[in-house]
Amino acid sequence: MLTHFNEQQRARMVDVSHKEPTERTAVAKSRVVMKPATLQTIEQGKISKGDVLAVAQVAGVMAAKKTSELIPMCHPIFTTGVDLAFEKTADDTIEIKATVKTVGVTGVEMEALTAATAAALTIYDMCKSVDPDMVIGPTYLVRKTGGKSGDYVRTPEKG
Amino acid sequence: MLTHFNEQQRARMVDVSHKEPTERTAVAKSRVVMKPATLQTIEQGKISKGDVLAVAQVAGVMAAKKTSELIPMCHPIFTTGVDLAFEKTADDTIEIKATVKTVGVTGVEMEALTAATAAALTIYDMCKSVDPDMVIGPTYLVRKTGGKSGDYVRTPEKG
Amino acid sequence: MLTHFNEQQRARMVDVSHKEPTERTAVAKSRVVMKPATLQTIEQGKISKGDVLAVAQVAGVMAAKKTSELIPMCHPIFTTGVDLAFEKTADDTIEIKATVKTVGVTGVEMEALTAATAAALTIYDMCKSVDPDMVIGPTYLVRKTGGKSGDYVRTPEKG
Amino acid sequence: MLTHFNEQQRARMVDVSHKEPTERTAVAKSRVVMKPATLQTIEQGKISKGDVLAVAQVAGVMAAKKTSELIPMCHPIFTTGVDLAFEKTADDTIEIKATVKTVGVTGVEMEALTAATAAALTIYDMCKSVDPDMVIGPTYLVRKTGGKSGDYVRTPEKG
Amino acid sequence: MLTHFNEQQRARMVDVSHKEPTERTAVAKSRVVMKPATLQTIEQGKISKGDVLAVAQVAGVMAAKKTSELIPMCHPIFTTGVDLAFEKTADDTIEIKATVKTVGVTGVEMEALTAATAAALTIYDMCKSVDPDMVIGPTYLVRKTGGKSGDYVRTPEKG
Amino acid sequence: MLTHFNEQQRARMVDVSHKEPTERTAVAKSRVVMKPATLQTIEQGKISKGDVLAVAQVAGVMAAKKTSELIPMCHPIFTTGVDLAFEKTADDTIEIKATVKTVGVTGVEMEALTAATAAALTIYDMCKSVDPDMVIGPTYLVRKTGGKSGDYVRTPEKG
Repeated sequence: MLTHFNEQQRARMVDVSHKEPTERTAVAKSRVVMKPATLQTIEQGKISKGDVLAVAQVAGVMAAKKTSELIPMCHPIFTTGVDLAFEKTADDTIEIKATVKTVGVTGVEMEALTAATAAALTIYDMCKSVDPDMVIGPTYLVRKTGGKSGDYVRTPEKG
Repeated sequence: MLTHFNEQQRARMVDVSHKEPTERTAVAKSRVVMKPATLQTIEQGKISKGDVLAVAQVAGVMAAKKTSELIPMCHPIFTTGVDLAFEKTADDTIEIKATVKTVGVTGVEMEALTAATAAALTIYDMCKSVDPDMVIGPTYLVRKTGGKSGDYVRTPEKG
Repeated sequence: MLTHFNEQQRARMVDVSHKEPTERTAVAKSRVVMKPATLQTIEQGKISKGDVLAVAQVAGVMAAKKTSELIPMCHPIFTTGVDLAFEKTADDTIEIKATVKTVGVTGVEMEALTAATAAALTIYDMCKSVDPDMVIGPTYLVRKTGGKSGDYVRTPEKG
Repeated sequence: MLTHFNEQQRARMVDVSHKEPTERTAVAKSRVVMKPATLQTIEQGKISKGDVLAVAQVAGVMAAKKTSELIPMCHPIFTTGVDLAFEKTADDTIEIKATVKTVGVTGVEMEALTAATAAALTIYDMCKSVDPDMVIGPTYLVRKTGGKSGDYVRTPEKG
Repeated sequence: MLTHFNEQQRARMVDVSHKEPTERTAVAKSRVVMKPATLQTIEQGKISKGDVLAVAQVAGVMAAKKTSELIPMCHPIFTTGVDLAFEKTADDTIEIKATVKTVGVTGVEMEALTAATAAALTIYDMCKSVDPDMVIGPTYLVRKTGGKSGDYVRTPEKG
Repeated sequence: MLTHFNEQQRARMVDVSHKEPTERTAVAKSRVVMKPATLQTIEQGKISKGDVLAVAQVAGVMAAKKTSELIPMCHPIFTTGVDLAFEKTADDTIEIKATVKTVGVTGVEMEALTAATAAALTIYDMCKSVDPDMVIGPTYLVRKTGGKSGDYVRTPEKG
């Protein structure tokens, strides 16, 4: 009559009450691969829904702030800085780099990954009527600093 | 003195007031590539944050409902069905398939892509302490039906 | 190598694409049981955080609109009407009745239950410094109309 | 012992279940009055937080979608189109015009006013370090169409 | 001509700027009473919407993070830990226990109560097609620690 | 092939990781100008949607907590206190004064402006069926304290 459900596999937001706040940074990258003609249309500012990268940038910053609403076991955190950069790394590729900072007890990897992803999804949304074949990713953590587990740097960076 | 700003490049939510509602479906896929040992730990139910795929599934369904909050120019839509499936397609890979349905005037590609992505980010979150090198994606639209632009099927499906 | 995870127990938002929209109503009740002195303080308008029932009413209406964000597998719905009523049913009890209406393909039981619950939680919040022993509930569906499963009326109403 | 609270003054989301959906449009305006030098800095693209009007435009569109979360008794609605335009109407004034469309049972006045306001607040946010004296408004409805109460046009338009 | 409205009864978020952050915990309980057959169906994993308790657990954790959006005068807070446990305390009853932690200037009673309630509502949602008579509650605070008002323990615990 | 997009005009959430937390206050004002008869109807409690100022007050407090969701580059912040006051400053004018406090690294000007604005929009919403000509604003910052840039007081206060 007194059965505990799910004891072993219980999902929870892990207790971080005793961790010390430190300054933390995380950098994540994603990319959108598209037809070269689509990328040219973006560069020429001729996508009918508007300036694709300006909108994607705002989407990325705002998504960083929404991370703990999207990722169930993610702790809420105060982002103290968010920066999104776009680079044309091939004639069919826009690379997205998201840098997120905080001073807190948990890392901001998820915020950086979420920001990069939301920017990529926004590029897809704004261009999908002309190029539904676009592919998002790979998306990955590049590096993080701060916290007691030490710094992390992907080696070598995933191409 | 009467300068219109931004006339050419103005971002906007495109007017769909005159489109007829139809039944629509979209299927998107993403994947998370990880160490084979990480995938085994997931399968054994030993990730300390909880049952990874159960949480990722809920995250995906809830993210589908949040799509228009994340993607700036995306129309709000009533999702009438959301289904997330996970498959182990290699000893280091979990593939995520999100199927979203609606009856409405705009497609649900973004909802399917957002659901698949949120599920992938959740897998990353729950396993990142044991495997920060995990890579998300490629993420892409597999097919969609409904709407006047006709059905779409990716050919061949991106591997 | 091709294992399908979770096939049997997969959580999903059930597909309602083929259901016909009908007018629907749901009524739910909750209650807050408190010290009689606490209820008198509410009636006298002397709770320092403000007019308790005015705030609880707004909280209930706004929570009805947030239902599908809180309940994972709940379909989003357009509430066409929300009404919260409070009644003193004993010298230690405020009963909350939430009535929610929509025209749509799914019922609004969850919206009514969520509205009643949020109003109850708000009463607790505003009075907890003077009476932390307050108890919320029972909370239950009183009746619903509309939809093909027919009308529902609790018999007899739970006291 | 059976006192009904608040019967007369009860706040509620008014029942619109029996209204017929029609196409509806609303146009609202706001403005931000600032130092002429601030407006020049915006035009030159030299505000350090980024392209002010591009960000304000996205903020306005996204806020239109959040209206029913902000305005307690406002019905949720599907915006089918949102467009924000900016005009320099004096050397110290940016006028904001928001146009919102829907097909539904309630008007979109609040969505248009909220969009214009959020864009104005965003301009303030991005320029406040150089010009905290900026003033927002007047903000007002210019016109609306659709619905049984007939069309509305402000006469003469508020200067 | 200079009437101040509502001076006495003004609702406000009470100023806590001068309170010192301390570690705080709150535990709340709720329950769902249902037909014994419904509880058996949950235990057998045969509810068609999915694994009821896995979904309810995620709903509870995510709702804890949304508390200040739902409860109007509640301060925003960083939850540092959230844990939901389910226990079958009778053949017709699932008891829900929510434990929430923070380091901050306000307590987390509302977060614990909201988490327990959202889990209960989710159980109702997932099982309502087979058992609409389910009853939620009583819902109450079990104990809290931290803060200058001292620890609280309900005595005796409400059955 | 390696073009950096948008380098000059990139929108970003400015890094405040190295700023020291201080106690901060901001006061903003807005107003709603209406027909004198409308204001009398509000005072008599006869607006059919409910007690206008009670709802507007709750809307203002809740909007303060949503500020960083609405204003794209705004940092999330913990509001430690929010207070909304209404004053009848002419027979056609309700003035709204919002006071927001925090202990943090960024100011709360935007929170105060957003709270005042949301209260004004709510007054418009609740009275628009009787007086669509109402005008909101001017809306402006009255003063702020805290932070290294020193205190700010508008001189003379905008009428």
